[in-house]
Amino acid sequence: MNRKLIAKTMGLLLSSEAAAMIPSLFLAFYYNEPDTRAFIISIAVTGLLGLVLSLISLDSQHVGYKEGFVIATLGWLLLTAFGSLPYILSGSLNSFVDAFFETMSGLTTTGSSVIQDVEILTHGILFWRSMTHWLGGMGIIVLTLALIPSLNIAGMSMYKAEVPGPTKSKVLPRVARTSRQLYKIYVILTVAEIILLTFAGMPLFDSFIHSFGSVATGGFSSKNASVGAYDSVGIEIIITFFTLICGINFSLHFHVLHGNIKKCLRDREFIVYLTVIVLSILLISVNLINIEDYSPGEALRSGSFQVVTIITTTGFATDDFNLWPDMSRILLVVLMFIGGCAGSTSGGIKVIRFLILFKSGARHLLRLSHPNAVTPVRLGKEVIPREVVDGVQNFFFLTLGIYVVVTIFLTALGIDLISAMSAVAATLFNVGPGLGIVGPVTNFSSLPEAAKAVLSVCMLIGRLELYTVLVLLHPKFWR
Amino acid sequence: MNRKLIAKTMGLLLSSEAAAMIPSLFLAFYYNEPDTRAFIISIAVTGLLGLVLSLISLDSQHVGYKEGFVIATLGWLLLTAFGSLPYILSGSLNSFVDAFFETMSGLTTTGSSVIQDVEILTHGILFWRSMTHWLGGMGIIVLTLALIPSLNIAGMSMYKAEVPGPTKSKVLPRVARTSRQLYKIYVILTVAEIILLTFAGMPLFDSFIHSFGSVATGGFSSKNASVGAYDSVGIEIIITFFTLICGINFSLHFHVLHGNIKKCLRDREFIVYLTVIVLSILLISVNLINIEDYSPGEALRSGSFQVVTIITTTGFATDDFNLWPDMSRILLVVLMFIGGCAGSTSGGIKVIRFLILFKSGARHLLRLSHPNAVTPVRLGKEVIPREVVDGVQNFFFLTLGIYVVVTIFLTALGIDLISAMSAVAATLFNVGPGLGIVGPVTNFSSLPEAAKAVLSVCMLIGRLELYTVLVLLHPKFWR
Repeated sequence: MNRKLIAKTMGLLLSSEAAAMIPSLFLAFYYNEPDTRAFIISIAVTGLLGLVLSLISLDSQHVGYKEGFVIATLGWLLLTAFGSLPYILSGSLNSFVDAFFETMSGLTTTGSSVIQDVEILTHGILFWRSMTHWLGGMGIIVLTLALIPSLNIAGMSMYKAEVPGPTKSKVLPRVARTSRQLYKIYVILTVAEIILLTFAGMPLFDSFIHSFGSVATGGFSSKNASVGAYDSVGIEIIITFFTLICGINFSLHFHVLHGNIKKCLRDREFIVYLTVIVLSILLISVNLINIEDYSPGEALRSGSFQVVTIITTTGFATDDFNLWPDMSRILLVVLMFIGGCAGSTSGGIKVIRFLILFKSGARHLLRLSHPNAVTPVRLGKEVIPREVVDGVQNFFFLTLGIYVVVTIFLTALGIDLISAMSAVAATLFNVGPGLGIVGPVTNFSSLPEAAKAVLSVCMLIGRLELYTVLVLLHPKFWR
Repeated sequence: MNRKLIAKTMGLLLSSEAAAMIPSLFLAFYYNEPDTRAFIISIAVTGLLGLVLSLISLDSQHVGYKEGFVIATLGWLLLTAFGSLPYILSGSLNSFVDAFFETMSGLTTTGSSVIQDVEILTHGILFWRSMTHWLGGMGIIVLTLALIPSLNIAGMSMYKAEVPGPTKSKVLPRVARTSRQLYKIYVILTVAEIILLTFAGMPLFDSFIHSFGSVATGGFSSKNASVGAYDSVGIEIIITFFTLICGINFSLHFHVLHGNIKKCLRDREFIVYLTVIVLSILLISVNLINIEDYSPGEALRSGSFQVVTIITTTGFATDDFNLWPDMSRILLVVLMFIGGCAGSTSGGIKVIRFLILFKSGARHLLRLSHPNAVTPVRLGKEVIPREVVDGVQNFFFLTLGIYVVVTIFLTALGIDLISAMSAVAATLFNVGPGLGIVGPVTNFSSLPEAAKAVLSVCMLIGRLELYTVLVLLHPKFWR
C-alpha cells in the first residue's frame, strides 16, 4: 500500500474543500452574519491540514487497485468530517452525528436533512450546505472515471468496450480530458439553470441553492416546504427539466452538444429511463385522480414533478407524497431503487443494471428450452461481457442484502416499518426524503443517533456504488 | 411437442387425484354428512376424464425439455381446477376463483385460505383440503426430481455433481428409485406425527389434518385459531419438530436413516438453516420481551413456533404475530423470502440459493482487489459451476421482479402496503398467512377476486420454482 500517495491525495482533497468554503465566508461577510468566525476557522483548519499533507513527497507514483479503493472511501470520509466543521462551529447543528449526517447527505447528493427549520439558517451555512451537493455531484463522476480502471464496474463506461485498460499510463490522459469536458457541461448546466430560475421569479440566492440541488440531483432547498414554497409552475418545469437531464448519462450530453442526437435515441438505457418516467407519471396521476380527488391538471403537475425528482434521486418536493395512496407511495419507493442512468449525477441501482439483469433473466429462460442456443446478453448491438453481467448480479444481491439488514436494524430501534424501509431506500440510493416519519414535510432529525450514523454509512455506500466501500471489509483485502 | 404424451400424463395425474378424493368420500359416508354427492360427482368427473386421457396410445415416448415444462405447469393447473370441484359442488365455496385459490393454496402447500370459518366445514371437505397439501408436498419432490434433467435447476440436486445427465434413459431408474425412497420417508414422518399428536391429546381426525399440514409444510388447520386452539406446549413442540425436519433436504434424512449423521453436520445449507432459525428466535424473543411485555417463557414459546413455521413456509399460528413489534414482523417477512432447504417440502427462495449468492458476492469483492486470483464459488469443498451460479442469480432477480410487480398491482386494487407486501410474499413463497388484512387471525377472503386470481398464479410460480412457468411465456418457447 502506497501510504504516502494516499496521504498526499487526502491533502489535495482537503485543500479543495477549504477552497470551496470561501464563497460561504464571503456571504457571511456580505450579510454581516455571525458565522464569519466559524468559516474562518473551518477554512484554516481544513486548508492547513490539506496543505501539510499535500506537501508530502512521494517515494513512488504507484497507484494499484487497493490504493484506489482506499483513496475513494477514506477521501469521502475525511471530506465529510471536515465539511461538518461549519455546522458545528456556527452552532447550526450541535451534535457531531447530526453534522456528519448533513454533510454526508450533501456530498453524496442525497439531500436527507436533520435540520428542522432551514429558513433560520444563515446565508453562509445554506450556501455551504448546497455547495457540498455541487461538489459531490461532480466529484462522483470524476472519481468514477478516475477509478474505473481499478474498479472495472459502474460509471458511464460500465459496459463500454472502449474503456481503457487497467494500466495507469494509458488511462490518465483520457480521464483528465473527459473530466474537463464533464466539468464544462456541469458548469454550463448550473449557470443556465440559475439564469432561468431567476427569470422565473426566484431570488438569485435561492436560484443558486436550487440549481446546485438540481444539477447534482441532491435536493437540499432553502425553504422548509422545498420547491413547493414557490408555488410556481414555471419554476417546477425548469427544475424538472434540469433534474431529468442530469439523470441521463453525461456522455449523451456530449453527443447532443456535437449535434449527434440520433445517438441518444438509440441509447437503450435512455429510452427505458424515459419510458419508466412516463409510465410512472401516468399511473400516479390516475391514482391521484381516482383516490385523492386531484383534478387532472393538479395530478399531472404533482405527479410529474415527484416522479422525476425521485427517479433522478434528487428529492425536492412540491406535495406531501407521504399522504398519497399506497400504490403511488410504493411506486415512488420502487423508483428510488431504480434511480437514473449510469454516468449521471443520480443515485439508485441505475437503469442500465436493471436492463442487464432483465436481459440476463430472459436469456436464461431461453436457454432452458433451447439449451444449445448461443445467446450472449446484448444491449442493442453490444454484447455485455459475462464478467460485467456477473458484477451487476452481485451488485444487485449485495445492495438488497444491505438494504434488508439496515431496515431490520432501524425497526429494532423502534422505527416503524414503512418509515424504516423508505429511510434506508432514501439514503442508500441517495434520494433524500422517504415516507412516514422521514417524509417530504418532515425530516431525519427525529431518528435516534444510531440510525443517523448507520444511514450516513448507507449514503456513502450508495454513492460509491457499494464495491468501493465493501471491498475494504473483505478479510483478504488487507493481506 | 409430443402432445399425446402430454395428454396421457394429464390423464395419469387426474386419475391419481380422483383416487386421492376417495378417503374424503368415505368420511362423508361415515359421518353421514351432506357432501357425499359432491364427492361422488367430483371423483366420477375427474376419474373418468383421467381414465380416457390415460388410455391414449403414444406414437413416441420422447420427452424433451419443452414437454417437461408443459407437463409440470399444465398438470398443476388441471389438478387445481379439478381439485376445486368438491368445494364448489358441496357449496363450501361459491365462487370459482375462491375454490381455485383454496385448491392451489392446498396443492402448492401454501396454506393461505379464503374460508372464513373452517370449523363449520364437513369432515370430508376438511380432509380433502389437507389431502391437497399432502399430495402437493410429495408431488413437488417427485416432480422436481423427475424434471431436473430437463430443468438443470433447483431441487435437491441443484448443485450436485452426481446428478445424472439430461438423457432420459440414464435418469429414469434413478428418479424412480429415489422417488420410492422419498415416499417411504414421507409416509413414515406422516404416520409418526399422527401417532405423537394423538398421544399429546389431539383428536385423531385433527391429528391427520395437522400432520398433513406439517410434513407438507402447508399449514391448513381444522381450527380457526390454527394450532393456537389447542394451547398445548406438547402439540406445539411436536409440530415445530416435524415442520423443522421437513424443511431440511430430504437427502439428509436418507443419511440419518443410514446412520450417517456426520454428513448432516457437514452440510452447509443445513447449518446455515439452523443458525438463521436460532438467531431469529433470539431476536424475536428479545423484541417481544422488551416491547410487548411477554415473559421470557412466553416469548420463547411463541417466537420459536412462529419462526419455524414461517421459515419452513408452513404458516401455522399460535399467536397473532401481526400485532408484534415491527422488527419481529419484518423479520418474519424476511424468513418468508429465505424459506427452507432445497429438496425439502418447503417454499421460499431456499437457503442454498442465498448461500450461493453470498459466496458469489464475496468472490466478486475478492477479485476486485486480487484480480488474478482464481476463485470459483465453493460450498464446503464443492465447486459450484458457473452456470448454476448464474441460474441462481437470475432466479433471484426474476423472483423479486415478480414480487414487486404483483405488490404494486395489489396496492392498485386498494390494498394497503403492508398487507400487499406480505400477501405476495406469503403466496409467492408458499407460506400462508401474511400481515395486516391477511394476518394469521384473518384470511384472504376479503381480497378482491382479481387479487385472489393473481395470488393463485404466484403460488404456482413459487411452487414450480419460477422457471417452469416463466419459460412458457418466452416468445421463442413455442417456435
